[in-house]
Amino acid sequence: MSANINIVLVNTSHPGNIGSSARAMKTMGLKRLKLVSPKNFPSDIANAKAVGCADILDNAIVTTSLAKSLTTSKLTIGLSARSRKSNIPCLTISELMALLKKYKNDEVSIVFGNEQSGLSNEELQLCNYVVSIPTSSAYTSLNLASAVQIFSYEYFKSSNIIEHISQDKRDLVCHSTKQHIIDLFLSVMSNLDIITEKNKRSLTQNIHIIFNKTNLTDNEANLYFGILSKIQKAIEK
Amino acid sequence: MSANINIVLVNTSHPGNIGSSARAMKTMGLKRLKLVSPKNFPSDIANAKAVGCADILDNAIVTTSLAKSLTTSKLTIGLSARSRKSNIPCLTISELMALLKKYKNDEVSIVFGNEQSGLSNEELQLCNYVVSIPTSSAYTSLNLASAVQIFSYEYFKSSNIIEHISQDKRDLVCHSTKQHIIDLFLSVMSNLDIITEKNKRSLTQNIHIIFNKTNLTDNEANLYFGILSKIQKAIEK
Repeated sequence: MSANINIVLVNTSHPGNIGSSARAMKTMGLKRLKLVSPKNFPSDIANAKAVGCADILDNAIVTTSLAKSLTTSKLTIGLSARSRKSNIPCLTISELMALLKKYKNDEVSIVFGNEQSGLSNEELQLCNYVVSIPTSSAYTSLNLASAVQIFSYEYFKSSNIIEHISQDKRDLVCHSTKQHIIDLFLSVMSNLDIITEKNKRSLTQNIHIIFNKTNLTDNEANLYFGILSKIQKAIEK
Repeated sequence: MSANINIVLVNTSHPGNIGSSARAMKTMGLKRLKLVSPKNFPSDIANAKAVGCADILDNAIVTTSLAKSLTTSKLTIGLSARSRKSNIPCLTISELMALLKKYKNDEVSIVFGNEQSGLSNEELQLCNYVVSIPTSSAYTSLNLASAVQIFSYEYFKSSNIIEHISQDKRDLVCHSTKQHIIDLFLSVMSNLDIITEKNKRSLTQNIHIIFNKTNLTDNEANLYFGILSKIQKAIEK
């Protein structure tokens, strides 16, 4: 039931949090762990925390960038304490659970940032949505493994309620195809001098947001790619 | 709002779990910690885990028996992975949350047992109800602080009207603006000979579908319009 969900931990500083996250996942039936540039992994400290969860740590996939860990994902969710920091569309936890039901046959990545700094803007812009776990406004410092535990718990609860889903999303593009289109789009903008050093950062984020919410199908992505390639050729002349 | 809730940890073996539990409580607005015969407390290990939560550890009330810690409680709930072990009435988490609303003016104790053995029958029989946090049947080993985190999170959710932070839809473009962009997009495609008599109908429909599901905001529409205008000018040359 949960084989499509990746838990992605980005730049984790403390290996104990990796082990505790693996345990949090396994209590709720989740198994796929991806680690982006962990400070210290494999680690005896992680192993010690992951009582009975060696399988999850052994099978964890380690990459050097968030983008690389997302290539085959159809939906990417960033967990962030600061949902209003960026313009990425926000979901509540219950909205997220409803969305995940629609993506139950697609690879989905749930991304957690570094313990101190969370997800950067560059990392957030790879996400279709950002979700904040509600906390007391007086003290918002949720431990990384606790955040993984709460997500996993909510997912376990919601996926044990069987619901009929009519919408078939199997033909949505994966992250790498979408990124390919975004890159080509940005390249066209650059050739037309729309992108400057000054606005590069914000325009890049805007284009990511637009394509993240478009949910292109494979056919639409092919069409879009064809159009952008023709534009690129035409303006190069 | 949560001043009536005690978190009671019984015979906790690892001081790190006491510190992590304090942190879990504080993220969800809970403050009253009681410790029954902790193996090691006060402890630097607990302090290190309770980042920013020294107040909770400093004010924790330590007793030598569960009964002593419950004297002023009106309602006692035992958290246990093995809810069927005893004859104590069971509640689901959501039934517990409904019950806690009725006791919002009474002192309530939520009791968590030792990491390895949980609550004994003698401890459980001091509880009005026993509650199990749902877990995967394949791996039920929820960490103590994770159990405290999940209870605290559920309590926080149920006792707060959580602000809805979904995407603000007020600034989405109106139909005519969207149509303007679609027309310009189709015009670019036409100029690049992507659109022919044969495929015009289906491509026009495809472009409409893509823009209909993008839900562009006004700002994004302006950006898009600017880009398409530049492309149009460039390919006319």
